[in-house]
Amino acid sequence: MGSRPTIQMVAELAGVSRGTVDRVLNERPHVNEAVRQRVLAAMRELGYLSPREAYRRQADAALRPLTLGVLLPNWEGQFRDEVTQGLRQACEELEASSVRVLIRRCETDLPQEAAELLEAMRGEGAEGFAVCAVNDPAIQGWIAARMAEGIPCVTFNSDLPESGRLCFVGQSIRQAGRVAAGLLYKCASGRGPILATAGNLKFDGHRQRLDGFLERLEELGFPAEQVMVRETFNDYETTLRVVGKALEEQPELRGVYMANLSVSGCCAAIARAGKSGRVHVVCHDINESVRQLIRSGAVDFTIPQDLRRQGYAPLLLLRDHLRKKSPLGPGRQQIHILCAENLED
Amino acid sequence: MGSRPTIQMVAELAGVSRGTVDRVLNERPHVNEAVRQRVLAAMRELGYLSPREAYRRQADAALRPLTLGVLLPNWEGQFRDEVTQGLRQACEELEASSVRVLIRRCETDLPQEAAELLEAMRGEGAEGFAVCAVNDPAIQGWIAARMAEGIPCVTFNSDLPESGRLCFVGQSIRQAGRVAAGLLYKCASGRGPILATAGNLKFDGHRQRLDGFLERLEELGFPAEQVMVRETFNDYETTLRVVGKALEEQPELRGVYMANLSVSGCCAAIARAGKSGRVHVVCHDINESVRQLIRSGAVDFTIPQDLRRQGYAPLLLLRDHLRKKSPLGPGRQQIHILCAENLED
Repeated sequence: MGSRPTIQMVAELAGVSRGTVDRVLNERPHVNEAVRQRVLAAMRELGYLSPREAYRRQADAALRPLTLGVLLPNWEGQFRDEVTQGLRQACEELEASSVRVLIRRCETDLPQEAAELLEAMRGEGAEGFAVCAVNDPAIQGWIAARMAEGIPCVTFNSDLPESGRLCFVGQSIRQAGRVAAGLLYKCASGRGPILATAGNLKFDGHRQRLDGFLERLEELGFPAEQVMVRETFNDYETTLRVVGKALEEQPELRGVYMANLSVSGCCAAIARAGKSGRVHVVCHDINESVRQLIRSGAVDFTIPQDLRRQGYAPLLLLRDHLRKKSPLGPGRQQIHILCAENLED
Repeated sequence: MGSRPTIQMVAELAGVSRGTVDRVLNERPHVNEAVRQRVLAAMRELGYLSPREAYRRQADAALRPLTLGVLLPNWEGQFRDEVTQGLRQACEELEASSVRVLIRRCETDLPQEAAELLEAMRGEGAEGFAVCAVNDPAIQGWIAARMAEGIPCVTFNSDLPESGRLCFVGQSIRQAGRVAAGLLYKCASGRGPILATAGNLKFDGHRQRLDGFLERLEELGFPAEQVMVRETFNDYETTLRVVGKALEEQPELRGVYMANLSVSGCCAAIARAGKSGRVHVVCHDINESVRQLIRSGAVDFTIPQDLRRQGYAPLLLLRDHLRKKSPLGPGRQQIHILCAENLED
């Protein structure tokens, strides 16, 4: 009673062996997912800490407190939800090691606003930064100046490659654009022109996707004059209008590359034109809306990315860097392809 | 000198921190692959055992010795190489826990030979079996009889679902066939007929692939009379001849589903007919030959599976089952799709 909870108590509450609890604790493979969740729930309920975690918290608590700053763009929906989940998980883990996290969200895509928010967090004492912002010289310069002072900055989701940041956490975006080109080429080649719609090309992520896409189409010998490019700023109404107009101008259009977030706007325009199933669609990311569009056949393929990890990993990398723990690289991730037949249920 | 090697010695030899060695030991995420390999090499060189592993070996050595039997089909090439790697890794781990492994390979696809080899291993004292064999009533019955006696049998790669085996370790094969259908449909629909070539339909794995493929094509509304099915027994010459004949009979052929191992035979037939690039190819598994065929554009997509794990996991499952350790399920694996643009280098 009142004493520290043990591994045995966790095992009993979860109805599994001590060995299984040990495997979950050490993130070892071959544990059934339902069992793992039951063990984690039992740990939370009992407030159990592994010896490793208890030791780490004790050690970290003795360290000087740290403050980290996170800058987010104004994107809504899936990006916001999943990155926020990752951030929240990181904050919970970091709180126990005396790390405070400031989070600021831009209201516009203006570089000046982003630079001001970064500077304000610096004023509040932030000693390391995780940044997702437009790839603008003003922000590149701000990051370069911090790096020169020994204040580490990590970019995530959309890179600022010229800034000299510590590292980038995210998909190999140019390659993801190349994969999209390969897929759409197989569906549409020899059948008609292709429309590529980008988000906001001032973000390196959106620019890289489009560059990779166009580069690969050219390598495959797809005629350049049969590719239309439009910027639709992740906005439903703009996408609906732009895709609708393209379908009028090019009645033979056979493929749309949706490099931005308004996939439902694109599919609505195709349905209104009475061309569902005739015009192939390849997009990025996966949420309930895209899942349904894939199941119904309106979207052929999507290329997902791990947004939760993009919120989680930068803060842990910054803490480890500032506290001189072993350097853990951001790691390269295989690019996956999802279609109606291999969507997970 | 001569004393047991320590984690510190491993860290020094590998040129990393103790924390990194600890992460590798505990299979924790976010360790750079090159660093991980360096740490593992240092452990091997020093003969280092983690406290967990040292304890386990000591505990297992005190147990009654076990004998396990493995039955393999006569397939050559990638299947044989990678499954053997997995088996070898399992044998190394199991040797230290007093488990002896017998391995027998069929020379034919005849069920009688398989049943005799299984019975012979039983005569040599095997108390658990890992089986990859034709889905024949004789072998189903043999497995069912062992299960009834309390002798566990695990199937891998190709299942014998009616045998009542403990579990199956492998891909969801029917779903993999459905994914192949979705991919080929997008490439070939409305353009011409499709040829599906299977390996040996007496293996459940080959049968399930084909069933999943045909089922999904029908759901998508692809006309049944436009699908030809041929059995080519994983043989290069047979595949070359059968695909060549199909291309003559059906000059409009636009897609080939290679559900068997002779992908190069299929591509050679297409090249000889002067139809490279016009006839789309979807296959299974990935090796250097398939990698090159994908890079050159001769193969559009492949659906890989983890063959190494199929050799490794059954033996560990059998040991854990027989020694009443915590039950570790075989786990469901996401089906991946590879094309020229997302092949790993």
